[in-house]
Amino acid sequence: MSLNSELELRAERFNQYWLRFLPETEPSELYQAARHLPLGGGKRMRPVLAMVACEAVNGSVDQVLAFGAALELMHNFTLVHDDIMDCSKLRRGVPTVHMEYSEPTAILAGDLLFAKSFEAMHQLTIKLDVIKALEAELIQCIIDICEGQEYDMGFEQRDQVSEQEYLQMIEKKTAVLFKLATRGGAVVAGATPEHVEALTTYGYCLGMAFQIWDDYLDMSSDEQTLGKDIGNDIRNGKKTLIAVHALEHAQPDQQTRLHSIFGNRKATDDQINEVLDLFRSIGSIEYVKTVAQRFHAQAVEALQVLPPSDARQFLEEMVTYAIQREK
Amino acid sequence: MSLNSELELRAERFNQYWLRFLPETEPSELYQAARHLPLGGGKRMRPVLAMVACEAVNGSVDQVLAFGAALELMHNFTLVHDDIMDCSKLRRGVPTVHMEYSEPTAILAGDLLFAKSFEAMHQLTIKLDVIKALEAELIQCIIDICEGQEYDMGFEQRDQVSEQEYLQMIEKKTAVLFKLATRGGAVVAGATPEHVEALTTYGYCLGMAFQIWDDYLDMSSDEQTLGKDIGNDIRNGKKTLIAVHALEHAQPDQQTRLHSIFGNRKATDDQINEVLDLFRSIGSIEYVKTVAQRFHAQAVEALQVLPPSDARQFLEEMVTYAIQREK
Repeated sequence: MSLNSELELRAERFNQYWLRFLPETEPSELYQAARHLPLGGGKRMRPVLAMVACEAVNGSVDQVLAFGAALELMHNFTLVHDDIMDCSKLRRGVPTVHMEYSEPTAILAGDLLFAKSFEAMHQLTIKLDVIKALEAELIQCIIDICEGQEYDMGFEQRDQVSEQEYLQMIEKKTAVLFKLATRGGAVVAGATPEHVEALTTYGYCLGMAFQIWDDYLDMSSDEQTLGKDIGNDIRNGKKTLIAVHALEHAQPDQQTRLHSIFGNRKATDDQINEVLDLFRSIGSIEYVKTVAQRFHAQAVEALQVLPPSDARQFLEEMVTYAIQREK
Repeated sequence: MSLNSELELRAERFNQYWLRFLPETEPSELYQAARHLPLGGGKRMRPVLAMVACEAVNGSVDQVLAFGAALELMHNFTLVHDDIMDCSKLRRGVPTVHMEYSEPTAILAGDLLFAKSFEAMHQLTIKLDVIKALEAELIQCIIDICEGQEYDMGFEQRDQVSEQEYLQMIEKKTAVLFKLATRGGAVVAGATPEHVEALTTYGYCLGMAFQIWDDYLDMSSDEQTLGKDIGNDIRNGKKTLIAVHALEHAQPDQQTRLHSIFGNRKATDDQINEVLDLFRSIGSIEYVKTVAQRFHAQAVEALQVLPPSDARQFLEEMVTYAIQREK
């Protein structure tokens, strides 16, 4: 079966389960707003990863659904609030929650999804001390995600950001939840410490590769498919790894050009293309590809201690997909 | 010792404890924003109530501090987000978090306080199944608070709200956290079911009395001390219990006047005073006072099953204070 079919199969099973946490109830405006993104699609990567990690160490997938729900509810909470902070009008082609409802209701809907994530954690039927330990990790995850988003916003105001700072930011903002997904899947299954560790490393590397590839995709498209977002990222001075690398490795004359255009909200389309050309000639786009490939290799390496299985194979294909996808 | 000194003494002890959950760390903007309200004062009513309820059933106050921290962190999270939703510029005389920092950082600071509340819950050293049960109640509390805030905002858009709807709204928005404070204090102390029940009823009634008295205070001031807020509440069509009662019991001609001014953002000061006069002549202000007194009586009654103690006395004085305070 293809990776996509495997993904969809598990996402479908997960969808049958998790919407119970978001009933159609009163006050209807609030619950409709909370259901808006969850019903609007999405690949359910985090819960699916938890399910497959659980399978890979012979766990029962039924046991891990509540944990997957906690992850997906938390992920959706961060999307709702991030869209407000970033003033995003569309997500997955449909209006964001604050555009469809109102900003106050979107703030509340995010808060509700946050609370519902813990409600889902309480549905786990494993030992209480294991639930508590896993929940403590989930709490730390949210703290990391808040810190990561604050760093991300703060970086836009700065002239220069180091590669290390960038990597720490995406670790907090993205990788921690991927890491907890596969780690938690293993913990719920009662895996050995060695296998838990392997799936922790795998999830972390997958999250890093995934986020870095997002950066690569955004910037590697040719002029014809140059989307509005690329221009906006450059105009907003968004510190993607490509930008970070370019700003660090540019020659003096390139530095001057970069600093005059990057972060300039009035930059013309020609200037945007000039920056993209600079990114290419400095080698930043290729560099970022190699960093993503490094995390890919580490993720695949981590999986080697697991017994061979369809689930392990699926995890390997997932991280390959993460750095080969074209959208 | 006076009620205020008793309150301050316990608030001081609590303050020595809970700020460990909000360290001065990086990213500094985020943590400063999260510390803004906690460091800006406040009576710490919820943790103090938990502490005194714990004392009233012979519990150790040390044991309940983490639970108090969870309540206070949660309360502060709701204040930060509510201030954004209500576009409030000041709280306790200082700029609100989104005014002092930015709206994105205020949203994140609220989210961080939310997560920190659960971090505090995890510091409880009582039995795991008791922590889990208490945490489930805290989760339900947040869901209630989100629902209550959504109802409150929705009511402003409606012509009429029933007294029952109003009472349900303030129960969710305010009383549930007071209820959990005293209930949780008793649970942490390992109190008998009868005493837990008594302190649950007490906390609920105290919360209701407290919120209703807030409404009364806002509207009962004479013309000379007529604050800006009263006018705004009337112009925004805010459904306080006074307004709910007046709209329900007005004579046809009074109805007409009320409907033409109440919720009219361009109402003049003279019209505001006309509405206040209507509230008085319909008897709504006096009525609300009697409702607050009814909850006061129920709270005091609930305490009677507890053994007499300084703590019980303190709780009795707290609810009397709740309906006698003048600000």
